[in-house]
Amino acid sequence: MPRRQFITGGLALAAAASFSPLTQARNPQFTIIGLVFDDYETLDLHGPVEMLGHVPNASIKLAGKRQLARSYQGPSVLCDLDLTRTYPCDLFLIPGGLATRTLVNDPELIDWITRQAAVSKRVFSVCTGAALLAKTGLLDGHKATGNKMAFDWIRSVGPNVEWIGKARWQESGKYLTASGVSAGTDAALQLIETVHGKDVADRIQTLAEYDRNRDPGNDPYAVEA
Amino acid sequence: MPRRQFITGGLALAAAASFSPLTQARNPQFTIIGLVFDDYETLDLHGPVEMLGHVPNASIKLAGKRQLARSYQGPSVLCDLDLTRTYPCDLFLIPGGLATRTLVNDPELIDWITRQAAVSKRVFSVCTGAALLAKTGLLDGHKATGNKMAFDWIRSVGPNVEWIGKARWQESGKYLTASGVSAGTDAALQLIETVHGKDVADRIQTLAEYDRNRDPGNDPYAVEA
Repeated sequence: MPRRQFITGGLALAAAASFSPLTQARNPQFTIIGLVFDDYETLDLHGPVEMLGHVPNASIKLAGKRQLARSYQGPSVLCDLDLTRTYPCDLFLIPGGLATRTLVNDPELIDWITRQAAVSKRVFSVCTGAALLAKTGLLDGHKATGNKMAFDWIRSVGPNVEWIGKARWQESGKYLTASGVSAGTDAALQLIETVHGKDVADRIQTLAEYDRNRDPGNDPYAVEA
Repeated sequence: MPRRQFITGGLALAAAASFSPLTQARNPQFTIIGLVFDDYETLDLHGPVEMLGHVPNASIKLAGKRQLARSYQGPSVLCDLDLTRTYPCDLFLIPGGLATRTLVNDPELIDWITRQAAVSKRVFSVCTGAALLAKTGLLDGHKATGNKMAFDWIRSVGPNVEWIGKARWQESGKYLTASGVSAGTDAALQLIETVHGKDVADRIQTLAEYDRNRDPGNDPYAVEA
């Protein structure tokens, strides 16, 4: 994979700054790597980013194959990091989107996800991001969930995963899988509560004026598993 | 303001394509311009983008002073358009964020917002984006709302606006103002219902597995006006 030419200019350089050990030493508290790709689903990524980004000393970097990743909805995000290496972090976020239908058949990407998951303390998929994670085999034997409109397809990608049809989100070991799109926002707040405590999660919920779903069993879009 | 040098590369060129009359002729249905700036609040922008981007033939472009705008949470978005001109559109989206505290004192930006609002069929602010909009004077005499944690400050920026302290969102003429952060997502679905009908809004809510607040009077973060 060719090394990307980063965008020039102060702002871009700041955003594209390498997630180096030095950077980690200055902001060691809560490091998040989010995978992005063309046709990612906007809220799968940015719902969790909103909440996680308010955790004290959070550092969120996006990683992708190219310089930019264009969302299904149109706007593009800058990839701060490329996929030529992996990045030890506290949380590895995998959004879904239309693109996952083809990306599950991209061995290079699935291999990178496998290796990135290995250096991540926790792994968090949203929506059809569960299919990308399931394809690695890492979810085998774990309980997991994903987008309910695409549940049959997700299940077919990970036949050895214990898929839960009624779950806003599902935790199992170091893996957290959220249901479709907006479920990622609720799951992110649950993760913040687990890792950083209820006070932090409640404070973030309040500043985002968010009406949080606190019950993973309260899944208005549940399907038969 | 110097003309920006757009990022080279096919993906960037596609994302950065001018919002020309020709482009509009191919996708005339529902054109959205979103203002972005450094330290914009992630969900203020991307909650509405998620929902609006699923409207049939929606086209969403981001406009900003520089090539990239870095969110408060960290990740950066590409500005498809610069602020050297205005862009006739169906909807002009103004997110909030920490930066609005200083941007209300940027006469060049406030002037651009004034002119961009004039060529927009509807104008939609989220969170402290209401302060930017109020600063133009366009909200004077209108009912409006905004972020409830920053409500006193927003009110001080627009002393001639009729601020509503208990409202998840507020419509008045061509202006739609949402309360803080996540309220923009509910307001966007209401706008979609108003413009495109209930079936379209309900379909989008379902595919996003979103638990929508349909009542603008149901404001869990209401304050005294």
